[in-house]
Amino acid sequence: MVFSLPRSYSVNLEQIRLEIRALQAQLVEWRRTIHQKPELAFQEHLTAEFITQKLQEWGIESQTEIAQTGIVATIKSNDPGKVLAIRADMDALPIQEANEVTYRSQHPGKMHACGHDGHVAIALGTAYYLTQHRQDFSGTVKIIFQPAEEGPGGAKPMIEAGVLKNPDVDAIIGLHLWNNLPLGTVGVRSGALMAAVECFRCTIFGKGGHGAMPDQTIDSIVVSAQIVNALQTIVARNINPIDSAVVTVGELHAGTALNVIADTARLSGTVRYFNPALEQKIQLRIEEIIAGVCQSHGAKYELDYWQLYPPVINDATMAELVRSVATKVVETPLGVVPECQTMGGEDMSFFLKEVPGCYFFVGAANPEKGLAYPHHHPRFDFDETALAMGVEMFVRCVEQFLSLN
Amino acid sequence: MVFSLPRSYSVNLEQIRLEIRALQAQLVEWRRTIHQKPELAFQEHLTAEFITQKLQEWGIESQTEIAQTGIVATIKSNDPGKVLAIRADMDALPIQEANEVTYRSQHPGKMHACGHDGHVAIALGTAYYLTQHRQDFSGTVKIIFQPAEEGPGGAKPMIEAGVLKNPDVDAIIGLHLWNNLPLGTVGVRSGALMAAVECFRCTIFGKGGHGAMPDQTIDSIVVSAQIVNALQTIVARNINPIDSAVVTVGELHAGTALNVIADTARLSGTVRYFNPALEQKIQLRIEEIIAGVCQSHGAKYELDYWQLYPPVINDATMAELVRSVATKVVETPLGVVPECQTMGGEDMSFFLKEVPGCYFFVGAANPEKGLAYPHHHPRFDFDETALAMGVEMFVRCVEQFLSLN
Amino acid sequence: MVFSLPRSYSVNLEQIRLEIRALQAQLVEWRRTIHQKPELAFQEHLTAEFITQKLQEWGIESQTEIAQTGIVATIKSNDPGKVLAIRADMDALPIQEANEVTYRSQHPGKMHACGHDGHVAIALGTAYYLTQHRQDFSGTVKIIFQPAEEGPGGAKPMIEAGVLKNPDVDAIIGLHLWNNLPLGTVGVRSGALMAAVECFRCTIFGKGGHGAMPDQTIDSIVVSAQIVNALQTIVARNINPIDSAVVTVGELHAGTALNVIADTARLSGTVRYFNPALEQKIQLRIEEIIAGVCQSHGAKYELDYWQLYPPVINDATMAELVRSVATKVVETPLGVVPECQTMGGEDMSFFLKEVPGCYFFVGAANPEKGLAYPHHHPRFDFDETALAMGVEMFVRCVEQFLSLN
Amino acid sequence: MVFSLPRSYSVNLEQIRLEIRALQAQLVEWRRTIHQKPELAFQEHLTAEFITQKLQEWGIESQTEIAQTGIVATIKSNDPGKVLAIRADMDALPIQEANEVTYRSQHPGKMHACGHDGHVAIALGTAYYLTQHRQDFSGTVKIIFQPAEEGPGGAKPMIEAGVLKNPDVDAIIGLHLWNNLPLGTVGVRSGALMAAVECFRCTIFGKGGHGAMPDQTIDSIVVSAQIVNALQTIVARNINPIDSAVVTVGELHAGTALNVIADTARLSGTVRYFNPALEQKIQLRIEEIIAGVCQSHGAKYELDYWQLYPPVINDATMAELVRSVATKVVETPLGVVPECQTMGGEDMSFFLKEVPGCYFFVGAANPEKGLAYPHHHPRFDFDETALAMGVEMFVRCVEQFLSLN
Repeated sequence: MVFSLPRSYSVNLEQIRLEIRALQAQLVEWRRTIHQKPELAFQEHLTAEFITQKLQEWGIESQTEIAQTGIVATIKSNDPGKVLAIRADMDALPIQEANEVTYRSQHPGKMHACGHDGHVAIALGTAYYLTQHRQDFSGTVKIIFQPAEEGPGGAKPMIEAGVLKNPDVDAIIGLHLWNNLPLGTVGVRSGALMAAVECFRCTIFGKGGHGAMPDQTIDSIVVSAQIVNALQTIVARNINPIDSAVVTVGELHAGTALNVIADTARLSGTVRYFNPALEQKIQLRIEEIIAGVCQSHGAKYELDYWQLYPPVINDATMAELVRSVATKVVETPLGVVPECQTMGGEDMSFFLKEVPGCYFFVGAANPEKGLAYPHHHPRFDFDETALAMGVEMFVRCVEQFLSLN
Repeated sequence: MVFSLPRSYSVNLEQIRLEIRALQAQLVEWRRTIHQKPELAFQEHLTAEFITQKLQEWGIESQTEIAQTGIVATIKSNDPGKVLAIRADMDALPIQEANEVTYRSQHPGKMHACGHDGHVAIALGTAYYLTQHRQDFSGTVKIIFQPAEEGPGGAKPMIEAGVLKNPDVDAIIGLHLWNNLPLGTVGVRSGALMAAVECFRCTIFGKGGHGAMPDQTIDSIVVSAQIVNALQTIVARNINPIDSAVVTVGELHAGTALNVIADTARLSGTVRYFNPALEQKIQLRIEEIIAGVCQSHGAKYELDYWQLYPPVINDATMAELVRSVATKVVETPLGVVPECQTMGGEDMSFFLKEVPGCYFFVGAANPEKGLAYPHHHPRFDFDETALAMGVEMFVRCVEQFLSLN
Repeated sequence: MVFSLPRSYSVNLEQIRLEIRALQAQLVEWRRTIHQKPELAFQEHLTAEFITQKLQEWGIESQTEIAQTGIVATIKSNDPGKVLAIRADMDALPIQEANEVTYRSQHPGKMHACGHDGHVAIALGTAYYLTQHRQDFSGTVKIIFQPAEEGPGGAKPMIEAGVLKNPDVDAIIGLHLWNNLPLGTVGVRSGALMAAVECFRCTIFGKGGHGAMPDQTIDSIVVSAQIVNALQTIVARNINPIDSAVVTVGELHAGTALNVIADTARLSGTVRYFNPALEQKIQLRIEEIIAGVCQSHGAKYELDYWQLYPPVINDATMAELVRSVATKVVETPLGVVPECQTMGGEDMSFFLKEVPGCYFFVGAANPEKGLAYPHHHPRFDFDETALAMGVEMFVRCVEQFLSLN
Repeated sequence: MVFSLPRSYSVNLEQIRLEIRALQAQLVEWRRTIHQKPELAFQEHLTAEFITQKLQEWGIESQTEIAQTGIVATIKSNDPGKVLAIRADMDALPIQEANEVTYRSQHPGKMHACGHDGHVAIALGTAYYLTQHRQDFSGTVKIIFQPAEEGPGGAKPMIEAGVLKNPDVDAIIGLHLWNNLPLGTVGVRSGALMAAVECFRCTIFGKGGHGAMPDQTIDSIVVSAQIVNALQTIVARNINPIDSAVVTVGELHAGTALNVIADTARLSGTVRYFNPALEQKIQLRIEEIIAGVCQSHGAKYELDYWQLYPPVINDATMAELVRSVATKVVETPLGVVPECQTMGGEDMSFFLKEVPGCYFFVGAANPEKGLAYPHHHPRFDFDETALAMGVEMFVRCVEQFLSLN
């Protein structure tokens, strides 16, 4: 858990930061260029073209069109060594931007409302810096630009396409610009950082009929109400209170007339949890409850259940590496925030299931500048000062993980 | 409770029946004419015209355009006496007829699927017979043809227009051709025959939010589920088990995405009961439950509640008159059915709140002929033999109530 | 449904009443004697001895010790004819009387708090009168004095002992002095008068554990709460609203410490209904609900269910006979009350399943005299004027049913 | 977060351990002596006497009879410096020991089933060692022996009696021998380690009545069932999923007969949580739910709610100190377990609200020796090897916190 610093490090400390800050104007320019051309999942063609052009310009070897629009850039040092992957996501959201900034989205109904434009800029800045400093680390850095993080998920097809192989990746890091933390902080913790995301859609088949003749029916609204009630006991009673979990019914629709008993009811919802051991358990409990309640009323059901993303679980050693790097970067211990778990999900989790790694948050909110809207909000924007901080985090992690000695 | 028979009655018994049966072909013709031109609530213009034309043809005094399309025909006997009203309803339903009969509906999307066409024919037949037999009763018969029984209700505006005044009505009778009883039976009972009909629409205002962050929300689906559950206790616990009541939630709609907690939920439903004492009670309990459950979760609500029709309550004396008449008409005691209550509603109830009266069912189903579809079904039809039986019921009730001695 | 009056009846009308009223002092004396010596189910030895002594005194043939303490007295007329049974119940309740009357219970903790003392007195008065008027009826009257009506039930063992055979009983009548009706009224109706009585006891087996570790348990209190909720839907949704039914959970006990999750929960309750078709249905629904809810939470259950008494269903013809008699006895039509159903139970129902009959209520409350406490109350008492009315009802029913012509 | 090691430390490392292990036989003897004489809350007289005798024997200054039976021992070093408190608890449980060991409880119905006997022995061993090594630390160590940890709580009255003053305590540490962790491990984490413990007792006042007449009652069992259901939503919906919370209803008792609707119901339960911000929130939600559900059914309630112990919250700096010490003591990084939160409570929390500190677990289970029963089990026992490990943890923490340089 204690990492030895590379010999040259303390000497270079300020030098690294100075060089990276010198890139700030370019980081902003790249980010804004991408921001103006947001593209949805698996359609990130302009974005990929922009990235590829930069990589070529800097002489970085890259593979493109992986899982449709994904790219892997490979930067080799002068010395043999381990392989560290850096992951960035490229896709935007189907949201109409409400900001009035000069660099606002030029694609109607689409917007980089989650900060992936910044993630691409940070990864590009990191790539550029590393090509200039191949002598400061050993081994290889792979930078993975993935499509479709917002769903249906680009990480899994990228892995299936072999991006963690040849050369085999030893560890992976990634970051999210995060408006839930103020600029100048880094959120990092060992273990679960973000939640598993699962979804379900259920149809309850009762028996419709005249609203005044309930005995000739099976009232799907009454059955559904008892299911919704019983589902509350999963989190309240079936999950270890120390584990975190959510079972939300987001939609319930039944009935077409106030005086007709509804034949069918449709419920759908989402499930979140951190502990991978809950993967089967919550799904099973949901089906047991629906089945039992339906049986008690003579109703039938159909249940579709999808496991979208597993939880984002950081490796303890890699998390400690990121934490120690962050204490240098943020300059104050209070700036490294372990209480940064969120029930949101991320398909970074698929990479972290394959190799040890750490995903972390770079604080990007600046309320004084009005930059504090939540992610996915039509007015979302972040303080671009965080871009250089993101590059510094990545660069220092590289130099730490792939240290020369 | 014991009625003395008019002296001439037993002599005329078979004579009445023979004369009425002679009208059968005309009854069928009239009914089929109306059946082919179904008209919705307050638009019964062709129907009213047809009725008015017949009344004029037979020299019966009538008032028209009461409550838009209603008609009152007044038939005076030669002797002074009481005033008995007979009520018939004229409106059709917004249903596309699925029968292939020669007399099927010629109005697309509209259909006499409840038998009101038969009710008009029976009332006309009764009017015709009575004009031929003014010497067989005393006093006056008022025949009320009302619009809009299927809703929003023509009875109340007819009453407000004064149809029970000048001369003042002493009692009222009415019938429904009834496919829940076989041809050859009459359903009649003292007290409640049909239910009160009330409706409600409620919006629950919670606080929407991210499906993974329930603590920042008030989950309107969870609140609604607890309301639906608690509403079950009204019938199960708050109503005297000997009284009949129904509280049905027919619609429950909430949520727009499976991973977003629903801001608002909309519930609507219908209430039925026989005992007039429950009028305030059920409405009050519904609001108490919604208010209490909302309060327990910090939600708000808006509740709209309508009292459509009160229960159809037959006067004990008038029900006994109809019952004694029915035993003559159906010729077998088993044919007079007291277990004929239904939780369906009827705006005949408004007349029965004003004057003593009796509403009864004339069995019209004939499964052997395929004439047994339920009311409001696109294949509803009835055995037209019931038309003459309906006329005989009305005529004998008139001669009994307005007996000469 | 129309009964021809015996020729001699109208002549004797006042004579019957005068003779019966002359018995009033004796009726009161007998009733008070029995009241002072209340005996519980199947222990009615003093009561049976008292009855037997009177029957012997009056020369009435009787069988004793039927179903332990039951008695059948047989009174034959001079003419051959049908056989009518009259039923009276003899047992008292385990209640400490709180009345201060001179004839108060001398048996501590026991009391005639339901009026069975009066039923015995009325049956004795009827027997005495009939022995004096054997010429006024044909056939045979059997008077059945049964034990244990309050439970576990004496009717069934009496029937099994053959009290309806040799000679075979054609019909049966019985009455209950009734404080829910005022003195001077008789409650009678065709069909269901009193409810079926069923009971259940259920144990829910969860899995106990530390109150802070719910995930290691199956919380039997949570399971029970959902069962109680779901049971409300039986009456609210599964029973025809026109039928009457009750499902009550009277006891729910679970848990031994506030910080320990309860291993087991015990629920018990009672079920009531009129319609015999519900006999299997409600029991089935209760078990379906318990099974389904338990299954949905991984709990187990044991359910014991008893059908105590079936509903008291009056035969239509016999009810009409009693109704027509009652109109004579109470002298005013309003005094014959058809709205006299009660969800209470009675093992008279077993007799009525065997032979046609009618059970009816004789109003016995007199609030002005402070005689209006409900049945089973420690201050229950009734207006003894009802005793003669009860005798008159029985005597007239005998003379009507066993009329000479 | 990085602690500089005292200069002499690495030299003395093995020396400390060797000296402490030499105390093992005495630690065992002391522990077994106390084990045989278990005493309940505020009755720890023999235990206190034993402690006092040892302290006097070793020449350690102490105050006794604080909060009835509490003791504070003060050990001053030769150098001025900070003040560190060490806390041990002395009380036993009202449990009959089921172990057959030679040192089993000699007090019927009482048992050290939680390990407090070991805590006293460890604190004594620490005191003894420190008196021998006053030259190895600066400042002062206060050892606090408190009564009644199992309830109603001795920490609070000890604090009120001034044990953290004169000299003022700068920080506090404490440990629990822990059978949920294996021997050879230490559980320690920053922030919440153990939960707040709160309790409630609630009576629901409905309106009792006949089981067949629900409409005349307010069914307290139905109301309670809806409350139990609604309470599930507190954890499921109202608490941030990342926070941990428990709301358990441990007891629900209502009703005295299966056919009588229960007048009142009594519910009681316990509440647990880590986040101090939930202190008011859960209590408020419980009362809101009970109030709202009662209102929706016309019931009344009385609610008693107690906040027993706040959560045990470790100071980040002190936790890091303990963690760094533990890595030395357990010799393997995997032996320091951060996933050691428990929803159990401890009144150590009161000390931690006053001064920064850290409470930690010393693994004591040894399944191979059959020493793995849970705390509070009649067969609870622990591996006594953990005693020396406990002393070593305390001694090293003292030398670290009160380091000479």
